[in-house]
Amino acid sequence: MTPQEFRKMAHQTADWMADYFEQVTDFPVKARVQPGEILSALPGLPPESGTDSETIFRDFGSILLPGITHWQHPGFMAYFPANTSYPSVLAEMVTSALGAQCMLWETSPAATELEQAVMGWLRDMTGLPGDFQGVIQDSASSATLMAVLCAREKASGFQVAETGGSAKKLMVYASTQTHSSAEKAVRIAGLGKTGFRKISVRADFSLDPAELEAAIREDLEKGFLPCAVIATLGTTGTTAFDPLPEIGRICKTYGLWLHVDAAYAGTAFLLPEFRPLAAGLDLADSYVFNPHKWMLTHFDCSAFFVRDPDHLVNVMSVLPDYLRTKSHGRVNNYSDWSIQLGRRFRALKLWWVIRSFGVNGLRDIIRNHIRLAELAESELKTWPSVDWMAPRTLNLLCFRFTQPGLSVPEENDLNDEILQTLNQSGKVYLSHTTLNGKLTLRLVTGQTTLTEPYLREVLDLIRQISGQILASRVSQEKK
Amino acid sequence: MTPQEFRKMAHQTADWMADYFEQVTDFPVKARVQPGEILSALPGLPPESGTDSETIFRDFGSILLPGITHWQHPGFMAYFPANTSYPSVLAEMVTSALGAQCMLWETSPAATELEQAVMGWLRDMTGLPGDFQGVIQDSASSATLMAVLCAREKASGFQVAETGGSAKKLMVYASTQTHSSAEKAVRIAGLGKTGFRKISVRADFSLDPAELEAAIREDLEKGFLPCAVIATLGTTGTTAFDPLPEIGRICKTYGLWLHVDAAYAGTAFLLPEFRPLAAGLDLADSYVFNPHKWMLTHFDCSAFFVRDPDHLVNVMSVLPDYLRTKSHGRVNNYSDWSIQLGRRFRALKLWWVIRSFGVNGLRDIIRNHIRLAELAESELKTWPSVDWMAPRTLNLLCFRFTQPGLSVPEENDLNDEILQTLNQSGKVYLSHTTLNGKLTLRLVTGQTTLTEPYLREVLDLIRQISGQILASRVSQEKK
Repeated sequence: MTPQEFRKMAHQTADWMADYFEQVTDFPVKARVQPGEILSALPGLPPESGTDSETIFRDFGSILLPGITHWQHPGFMAYFPANTSYPSVLAEMVTSALGAQCMLWETSPAATELEQAVMGWLRDMTGLPGDFQGVIQDSASSATLMAVLCAREKASGFQVAETGGSAKKLMVYASTQTHSSAEKAVRIAGLGKTGFRKISVRADFSLDPAELEAAIREDLEKGFLPCAVIATLGTTGTTAFDPLPEIGRICKTYGLWLHVDAAYAGTAFLLPEFRPLAAGLDLADSYVFNPHKWMLTHFDCSAFFVRDPDHLVNVMSVLPDYLRTKSHGRVNNYSDWSIQLGRRFRALKLWWVIRSFGVNGLRDIIRNHIRLAELAESELKTWPSVDWMAPRTLNLLCFRFTQPGLSVPEENDLNDEILQTLNQSGKVYLSHTTLNGKLTLRLVTGQTTLTEPYLREVLDLIRQISGQILASRVSQEKK
Repeated sequence: MTPQEFRKMAHQTADWMADYFEQVTDFPVKARVQPGEILSALPGLPPESGTDSETIFRDFGSILLPGITHWQHPGFMAYFPANTSYPSVLAEMVTSALGAQCMLWETSPAATELEQAVMGWLRDMTGLPGDFQGVIQDSASSATLMAVLCAREKASGFQVAETGGSAKKLMVYASTQTHSSAEKAVRIAGLGKTGFRKISVRADFSLDPAELEAAIREDLEKGFLPCAVIATLGTTGTTAFDPLPEIGRICKTYGLWLHVDAAYAGTAFLLPEFRPLAAGLDLADSYVFNPHKWMLTHFDCSAFFVRDPDHLVNVMSVLPDYLRTKSHGRVNNYSDWSIQLGRRFRALKLWWVIRSFGVNGLRDIIRNHIRLAELAESELKTWPSVDWMAPRTLNLLCFRFTQPGLSVPEENDLNDEILQTLNQSGKVYLSHTTLNGKLTLRLVTGQTTLTEPYLREVLDLIRQISGQILASRVSQEKK
């Protein structure tokens, strides 16, 4: 491709991007393809000769696009959003042109120092403790893994790092509602399934601190070494908030590392009125939240904060000759704060987004998403067939349809049918979780471009489809 | 930003990108800023109100761009390249518009199946064993960590995953020249510094298989459990190739997992004439190479292959309710093949690059890079003051300037001065390594757009600057 051809194609692609955002609701939000359908349309062998970009673009449209689930569609209400925004897209364009590898200060001074600056901004604009220092990770999975590693080495006095074992069995605690990445982190760190103790939750799906303390005391009596608690602010299942002040007090009492996972909910702390939900964070040793979920910034951008970066670097750093540079020790080399050596220029999009919207602009968007959730909650609560499965704390609704006389498995089937039918509509994509054995629908009003009229259309559709399915079950029963 | 404003800005950005690639040699390849210079130009507090993108773009140019080291500059000959290309940029633009989260088939069918297809292409076009199955990772660091985890669980019979310990001390082996990510992986996996045994290298910096076998036998006699060898094809220091057939035989004899790190050199196996260097790969259990280094595809795109994906999934998967989908078990869910749950749509750029260049087009570029290295080697070898520090296998040159009568530390100073002066020139960026205590310059001819005329200018500059510095040392000595 010549420079001239690239310029032409870059403009065509810019138009495609702008069109895509304007027309995204023309696509079904959830792809309608069957397993294997896309694969079978792709050649089994790599092409020997090159193809022009116009053809590639055409094939992208005809082969791949039908198999894309549109995460930037306002009807995407499944899981948690992975929001982008116009400013973030512009920053990603610039990032892709620079193609900089941001492992060391030396290889990318601007990226390193911009990261230092915007992580400070992020800390202050979400009201985090002033002594937190941040680094951008690819995902909360990686951040939580690093927190577990920090805890492992702190508790064992670097015995695991040195010898591969500790005199006492190390234990990590988290609630049954904690994200799967916590269990995965404990397993990767070599602490084992039996080193991860799941603490039961209260009626609101938040960790029961009395159970936590009892578990720690029991393990101490057994001669184990409790080393960390992973508390969640805004669980994946229901956005439950673990009671941080109590958990923090327990961690201080027994000398445990406190890692706080606010991957989704952290964005809500932009709003001063939600900061009481983060009370107790001053007791945390590490904290993660993902601007790439709800804060309009492309994946990957996970903000990991620690109180003691020296400890983090001691745990993570290995420094061979070819990475030693003149500036070492005087600047941050963020690969020493990370699992991976290689790093994209991830601070740029965060800077672009924060500057473009301003803190107040971001607040307006987040407040509106929460207002839309309140609106949907009010509406759904007027429907007689809807059971509320968990308290709403932010903008996730957990509910379920019920029908008198049905057993729990039958009701699970009913809700699954409603879910699948809604997701085939093209208008909306919901996900589910299981709460106390009951299949529960999850609806998140957090997609960047979601509007009240679109939400009302979705609610109408849910009413209509659930009504039809409920009616057909009644008529089947009567037969 | 309105849709109209975005379209306008996207076009402006497209032009900026095209201009950047055409004018990249106008910038000094290595940023000339001092530590703290960029940081001090950035506001300490986040902006309350929003700013228009024109202003942000202007600030990017005035504040950040001077602190960017230009990895896509033809004079970037440091470390290993992190190449992009025009087709990869177009794919990244599309990827950023889609903003898809590719953790499960269900959330991204096209991304999943395209990944399956292109990883098959990549396997076949680089001549890897036909039963390798691939997954895209963010980095070789993550891939090597997963290989160590697979080895840990295979050797311990999932005892570590279950209980957090194994009856016998687990041991991992790699040469002293192995990338630091190997030691980091062993440490993260909880096997400890003493669980990682560095095997000495031969004169060509490749692992000494006799030493490896002796170490394994010694550890077995001590009652340890040797579990993995990490062999490198193309080390970071000198692109040395560990003797895979012998290492593979040893791994089979003693039942060790063989992980092969070809992060940089893997791209060379596009060329049939270089495949003899990969002999023995049929004995490997896992293999990683980074198309994001030399194969013109943006970071992050690290290709991780395993022979037994079921084992990988058994090691890595944790599956909570909210991630269970109807299609589970019938399709690949690549988050079960990864450390992280979240995943970008990384297959698209690989597909775009392979289709755009075709295998033959990629071969031409890689062959040309190696030809340029041969040319530079021939030239440098005619200079009387140059010592050759390691054999050239691909396109990395390892050399050093010498002067009669200087001690090793004095010569190290001399080479450091030459290196720093070259890197301040703006024309070229070299890195260094230390070989047998001697500071060695590393020059890689692998940047996408490097041409013979540019390389000749760089060689002239090296001759000129080294000549001046050598002459000044001689005249100082005479005083």
